Amino acid sequence: MTSNPPPVAHHHWVVTLVCADRPGIVHAVSGAIVRARGNITESQQFSSADTGRFFMRLQVESPADRAELEAGLAPVVDRYEMTSVIDVVGRPLRTLVLASTAGHCVNDLLFRQRAGQLPVEIPLVLSNHGTLRDLVGFYGVPFESLPITDAASKAAFEARVVDAVEQNDIELVVLARFMQILSPGLCERLAGRAINIHHSFLPGFKGANPYRQAHARGVKLIGATAHFVTGDLDEGPIIEQNVVRVDHSRTPGELVAIGQDEESRTLSQAVKWFAENRVLVDGARTIIFK
Amino acid sequence: MTSNPPPVAHHHWVVTLVCADRPGIVHAVSGAIVRARGNITESQQFSSADTGRFFMRLQVESPADRAELEAGLAPVVDRYEMTSVIDVVGRPLRTLVLASTAGHCVNDLLFRQRAGQLPVEIPLVLSNHGTLRDLVGFYGVPFESLPITDAASKAAFEARVVDAVEQNDIELVVLARFMQILSPGLCERLAGRAINIHHSFLPGFKGANPYRQAHARGVKLIGATAHFVTGDLDEGPIIEQNVVRVDHSRTPGELVAIGQDEESRTLSQAVKWFAENRVLVDGARTIIFK
Amino acid sequence: MTSNPPPVAHHHWVVTLVCADRPGIVHAVSGAIVRARGNITESQQFSSADTGRFFMRLQVESPADRAELEAGLAPVVDRYEMTSVIDVVGRPLRTLVLASTAGHCVNDLLFRQRAGQLPVEIPLVLSNHGTLRDLVGFYGVPFESLPITDAASKAAFEARVVDAVEQNDIELVVLARFMQILSPGLCERLAGRAINIHHSFLPGFKGANPYRQAHARGVKLIGATAHFVTGDLDEGPIIEQNVVRVDHSRTPGELVAIGQDEESRTLSQAVKWFAENRVLVDGARTIIFK
Amino acid sequence: MTSNPPPVAHHHWVVTLVCADRPGIVHAVSGAIVRARGNITESQQFSSADTGRFFMRLQVESPADRAELEAGLAPVVDRYEMTSVIDVVGRPLRTLVLASTAGHCVNDLLFRQRAGQLPVEIPLVLSNHGTLRDLVGFYGVPFESLPITDAASKAAFEARVVDAVEQNDIELVVLARFMQILSPGLCERLAGRAINIHHSFLPGFKGANPYRQAHARGVKLIGATAHFVTGDLDEGPIIEQNVVRVDHSRTPGELVAIGQDEESRTLSQAVKWFAENRVLVDGARTIIFK
Repeated sequence: MTSNPPPVAHHHWVVTLVCADRPGIVHAVSGAIVRARGNITESQQFSSADTGRFFMRLQVESPADRAELEAGLAPVVDRYEMTSVIDVVGRPLRTLVLASTAGHCVNDLLFRQRAGQLPVEIPLVLSNHGTLRDLVGFYGVPFESLPITDAASKAAFEARVVDAVEQNDIELVVLARFMQILSPGLCERLAGRAINIHHSFLPGFKGANPYRQAHARGVKLIGATAHFVTGDLDEGPIIEQNVVRVDHSRTPGELVAIGQDEESRTLSQAVKWFAENRVLVDGARTIIFK
Repeated sequence: MTSNPPPVAHHHWVVTLVCADRPGIVHAVSGAIVRARGNITESQQFSSADTGRFFMRLQVESPADRAELEAGLAPVVDRYEMTSVIDVVGRPLRTLVLASTAGHCVNDLLFRQRAGQLPVEIPLVLSNHGTLRDLVGFYGVPFESLPITDAASKAAFEARVVDAVEQNDIELVVLARFMQILSPGLCERLAGRAINIHHSFLPGFKGANPYRQAHARGVKLIGATAHFVTGDLDEGPIIEQNVVRVDHSRTPGELVAIGQDEESRTLSQAVKWFAENRVLVDGARTIIFK
Repeated sequence: MTSNPPPVAHHHWVVTLVCADRPGIVHAVSGAIVRARGNITESQQFSSADTGRFFMRLQVESPADRAELEAGLAPVVDRYEMTSVIDVVGRPLRTLVLASTAGHCVNDLLFRQRAGQLPVEIPLVLSNHGTLRDLVGFYGVPFESLPITDAASKAAFEARVVDAVEQNDIELVVLARFMQILSPGLCERLAGRAINIHHSFLPGFKGANPYRQAHARGVKLIGATAHFVTGDLDEGPIIEQNVVRVDHSRTPGELVAIGQDEESRTLSQAVKWFAENRVLVDGARTIIFK
Repeated sequence: MTSNPPPVAHHHWVVTLVCADRPGIVHAVSGAIVRARGNITESQQFSSADTGRFFMRLQVESPADRAELEAGLAPVVDRYEMTSVIDVVGRPLRTLVLASTAGHCVNDLLFRQRAGQLPVEIPLVLSNHGTLRDLVGFYGVPFESLPITDAASKAAFEARVVDAVEQNDIELVVLARFMQILSPGLCERLAGRAINIHHSFLPGFKGANPYRQAHARGVKLIGATAHFVTGDLDEGPIIEQNVVRVDHSRTPGELVAIGQDEESRTLSQAVKWFAENRVLVDGARTIIFK
């Protein structure tokens, strides 16, 4: 709710709250916002029948600074044992991109970041190949490559990921067609803050060269799925999916190109929602507050 | 929010609230819901920067009956000078359909109603032609025709509309390709509860036979707009719009058929949202809480 | 191509031709059409790099009757060893519908047939349950039920299918959520003229209650696939696929309802294209000349 | 049609043919292609009932060079008085971009060109402002600005356009939100090879600030139209249109941003089809052979 604007500077806050579902939460939260002199400009909530969890995302305008807003919310957060996040609307998320040789997803992320469509900062693109050095440089983003050829070099690569995350205060790791399976330990460490993209078909295809299989079966839709990275390959909570229509005249090569477009836009969409604090995890599922 | 269900029957209520925007409304409303032993299962809100109005739609589960819920909300409704509606989720809306000779929209409404996809009851279809008598009878709905040939017969038709509205406790009048302009008096009387459908093009075309004009210009999209009826023909607040892609190979006749499909589904969608209390009016605009 | 219309009645023919791909086919075919006094009003072709087959669909206006058109095409059909079909544009296809208890696909087929949107005649709906008797009767279509409870009754049901196909000159068998696996012998007998529908997800789910699994994984798209029936369950050549976007707020029951809408429209679309001679089979794939 | 490939290099040609519609054209054309040792790999045709014109687009693989292909087609082109174009599939079209201060369309064109998604070469971006100099330079494309402040400077700008077209063998001029009305003389000179983009709404809005009007009316769809430039502003043959769904929560500023995305992708799509010889003009309409 907006009122006549007072003559002081307002901050625009985003708040996410997760707790066990009970009656009265909305009332308690809205009361806390009132006490912190905030107006709720956007509000979404969801009660999960599966897990009994309650999820809420608010955008709040207030002359209060972070300390005042936190103090206002603290009694409610404590009482309902909430997991809470308070952030500034539009603050760029510090994001590490992992890549291999394919440039389409990396390029789409960097282009949208530069065009102001993706609220992220990308201090580093890290790859196991040098292929994308020029592309990344074109956008003025640091690029580093470390080959992965065996268990030792893979461990070294992962150690570099861990370092880069710490050195750069990374909040999100994006696997932009990275094509490598992360070790269980790294998956664990990055749980809930690493996003992967892969192609998707109806029906699904197992094994190598799925686009060739999709062509052989004459599928009419091909698509992509962006999901959180977990120890189960390609099985983490789904954030976004898209498909596009194809027909019999498409060669396997054309299916690859079309699929790459879907991968790019699906990954960028998932990253955007994550950076805007719109993605909350409910067990094996995501809640997306668009 | 849902809690462990108490061992009493619950009602599922929908509540809409509209008032001047001020701080604290959400807090006050959620407090009233708590007092009426309600859990908010769905909540949407919007603050209009154009008119300074605040709009809210809630779904609430509660063991309270209507009197208790109304009593709980009354202090808030009074304090904020709210326009409020309390209804039972899923209650069929009593709907009068006005038709002419074209059957596509009438058929779609009746089919969806019968299939359980449209929460309306249709006690009468009223037409200025007898063309649709068999179609309407097929669905077991009463049908009445009254010719409109001059000013006197038009006035008689409109008088019959007014009677039918009163006799049948009509809450919504749907102009399903009725093709007649309602008199200013009847527009006024039905303000906010009459919905019309018309075809839409980019760019718009004035004058007769717009599908032929659309064909001549080779438009690539044709569509339909459902809107509230006002004194300004085809200019009331827009509820829903759809378009569909066409190409150069379509004849004017095919454009008409495609356009009719869009008209049917757009009108049915608008009626469904209205019947679900999802459509609120904000000056010349609508707020749609999907 | 259209010319000044001669003062004789014209027929509108659809012709499909399939043969091994070689140079000169289009020239030979168009010459034969010229000899049969035909104008090609629509023409589509496809050369399959996978199988080396050439596919063509023509619509032809001509004063020639079927005998003259066949005679005109015969030398080309012989020379290129073509599989050819000559039919009248818009002729209703004689279609047998197999159903179980779910009514959504049956209702959609019957409604569209009646509305003139589906060029089929349906002389019989055959079911292993009596559930849909009233619905089918509502559309004036004969309905017959024969329970399937064991191997013997299943064999009897399939024998009735074979009889019904022969007695009614059936050209297409539609499994409208029939939920029974046809025996290999019946699959073989109906090869290329039986269409099935099933739900589809990204990723696919094995086992019972896929909508519940889809809910548990939080999929963002659900859909349906219409395909030819083969001995491999759910694995015949795909004719059409659709998906629709869902979000976290949908219950498993809502996913079922949404999925049923997709099944209905996808099956009806596949039947329509088949009835219009737009579906040709190329090994495990279909060519769809929309 | 493809045959066993001969052991010589093949060219991939695109051929477009337009003439008065008469029987026998397809036969004559396919015969000429056979004589030029060509295999037709893609073929589309359309007979316009409005103008009596016949339109055809072929892709042909052949060991023949341009001279042999032209010679093979010449008798047919002469006999049917065809307008014919023979081009190499994938050849980049020499394209001049005219711009003003808005960068979204220019950026999209340059990005897609660079990403290999748009078969154009852009030797120059010409603007009446200097705003986009850095953006264009980022892609390594020459940029020139010439202010337009009065009739004389406008005439000078247009003279520079004419020079640039001649000096650079320009085949297409793209008005990428150029915001200036070309003089009738320049429209005439560039007829059929200049493409403009503008926003589109249902219903259409006249006058200034259409996004603000669209917001005030609460439209649910906003879009864009790409069309050929003619003397009638915003009224040339339409090449492509897109819309996107918006809702009541969008500010006028957000509508502008959304509309710009539609403008960008619609313009790029139109340019792509034009560059691929897929756009043919039929009076006030276009034939698009996708």
